[in-house]
Amino acid sequence: MKYTSEFTLGLSSVDAAGVLFYPELFRHAHDAYEGFMQHIDWALPEVLAKGELLIPIVHIDADYLRPLHHGARVTVEIVVGGLGDSSFTIDCDFSAGGDTPCARVRSVHVCIDAASHSTVPVPAALRERLEPYISH
Amino acid sequence: MKYTSEFTLGLSSVDAAGVLFYPELFRHAHDAYEGFMQHIDWALPEVLAKGELLIPIVHIDADYLRPLHHGARVTVEIVVGGLGDSSFTIDCDFSAGGDTPCARVRSVHVCIDAASHSTVPVPAALRERLEPYISH
Amino acid sequence: MKYTSEFTLGLSSVDAAGVLFYPELFRHAHDAYEGFMQHIDWALPEVLAKGELLIPIVHIDADYLRPLHHGARVTVEIVVGGLGDSSFTIDCDFSAGGDTPCARVRSVHVCIDAASHSTVPVPAALRERLEPYISH
Amino acid sequence: MKYTSEFTLGLSSVDAAGVLFYPELFRHAHDAYEGFMQHIDWALPEVLAKGELLIPIVHIDADYLRPLHHGARVTVEIVVGGLGDSSFTIDCDFSAGGDTPCARVRSVHVCIDAASHSTVPVPAALRERLEPYISH
Repeated sequence: MKYTSEFTLGLSSVDAAGVLFYPELFRHAHDAYEGFMQHIDWALPEVLAKGELLIPIVHIDADYLRPLHHGARVTVEIVVGGLGDSSFTIDCDFSAGGDTPCARVRSVHVCIDAASHSTVPVPAALRERLEPYISH
Repeated sequence: MKYTSEFTLGLSSVDAAGVLFYPELFRHAHDAYEGFMQHIDWALPEVLAKGELLIPIVHIDADYLRPLHHGARVTVEIVVGGLGDSSFTIDCDFSAGGDTPCARVRSVHVCIDAASHSTVPVPAALRERLEPYISH
Repeated sequence: MKYTSEFTLGLSSVDAAGVLFYPELFRHAHDAYEGFMQHIDWALPEVLAKGELLIPIVHIDADYLRPLHHGARVTVEIVVGGLGDSSFTIDCDFSAGGDTPCARVRSVHVCIDAASHSTVPVPAALRERLEPYISH
Repeated sequence: MKYTSEFTLGLSSVDAAGVLFYPELFRHAHDAYEGFMQHIDWALPEVLAKGELLIPIVHIDADYLRPLHHGARVTVEIVVGGLGDSSFTIDCDFSAGGDTPCARVRSVHVCIDAASHSTVPVPAALRERLEPYISH
């Protein structure tokens, strides 16, 4: 299963060459990830408000394969690239009117207890909701 | 007539207090403005690509009336607050689940000839498309 | 008295025309404001950490007079434009290698009690530190 | 040899937890990279203005090892992690008052002819300026 979202590439996200400025890739990847987490009923604003669990992103890997132009309608597809004991990986593909991705962002998220700052297992309820999105 | 768009306030737009960081107000106002311009068939990427007309924003006025929180579903409403010879004003209201706006951004856009950098009249075709959105 | 800071306009702050994208004006104004507050020994990270006082920005007024180009070395000058009972105004001028400002941002900051969310007087110690920077 | 720059982590770069929001890591890495390129007399605004060579970033690898807090004075150290025929790698370490890096960004930059969009060798003059910064 995949989670899909869309956005139009605005002037705020392009550089002087009129194409997506790469740090903006991560901003849009995070927006899509927040949409995904809300979709699986694990909305980050609520998680942060509870204050028990932190899920920092500790590693990022990204390819920017072809330029995304100002005004492009961009499709973002999210799958779960990996699900470990205390971490999971979000794979985020960006494309614009074609089958070939223009960019890929892979982020590793680790579950941390907010009080002790120790690594903790991915909560069972979250694990259950991530599983259908594991890529094969 | 109004142009309406929506977005969810992501972590990228909030400050350490979990509420919209005010410079992000202008980013979202610009995103909404780009959506509006596309809606009235005067898409900015095409205007910029043609390279004849520039429409820089020369003045901004904004009120940030009540905090917009992380995760809020925000409605943005655009009307044309004024239409002069060579400039127009975009009024952008932000609200979140209520009638009272949380923030207002008013921006003045001036038409400039890209070659001479002189002020030019708002093109007739653009004027025609802005007029239905003039507020009363 | 004035507080002065500098920055180089990076690719992250320009639009497809290679000039400062106006929402970035407010980001840089806020960076300069944070530098100013630290300079007068009223550093915002400490104020926020204490959790007693909030100083939200409730009104913004800005002019973007001439384009600031990618790579420009920008000087930011801050004065206090006004000091009321419970609010103060920060005037922020941007220039690049000339006497004429390229942009101006005027922001109104209101003191709020973090617990009750009521307006409170500008703390005496803060008032004392702002006073030397009041413009005449 | 290393290139070093510094910045103070402003409210614009933190999330609701008061720590650096990871997409901002790439913004600051790019700012440092632009400073480095200017330092070795290969300023990006001039390269872009000439319009002959593009140097897009095609791959990113990053670790966010420990939180960088609002107000932190951050040191960025740049070395050249690799220098190939038509590409080079920039290694960017972020630290705050300690020897241990808080974050690392590794970016791969490819030289492209602006007209033909083909990969071209790293210009000899650029290669010469990058070489002293190659890490060992």
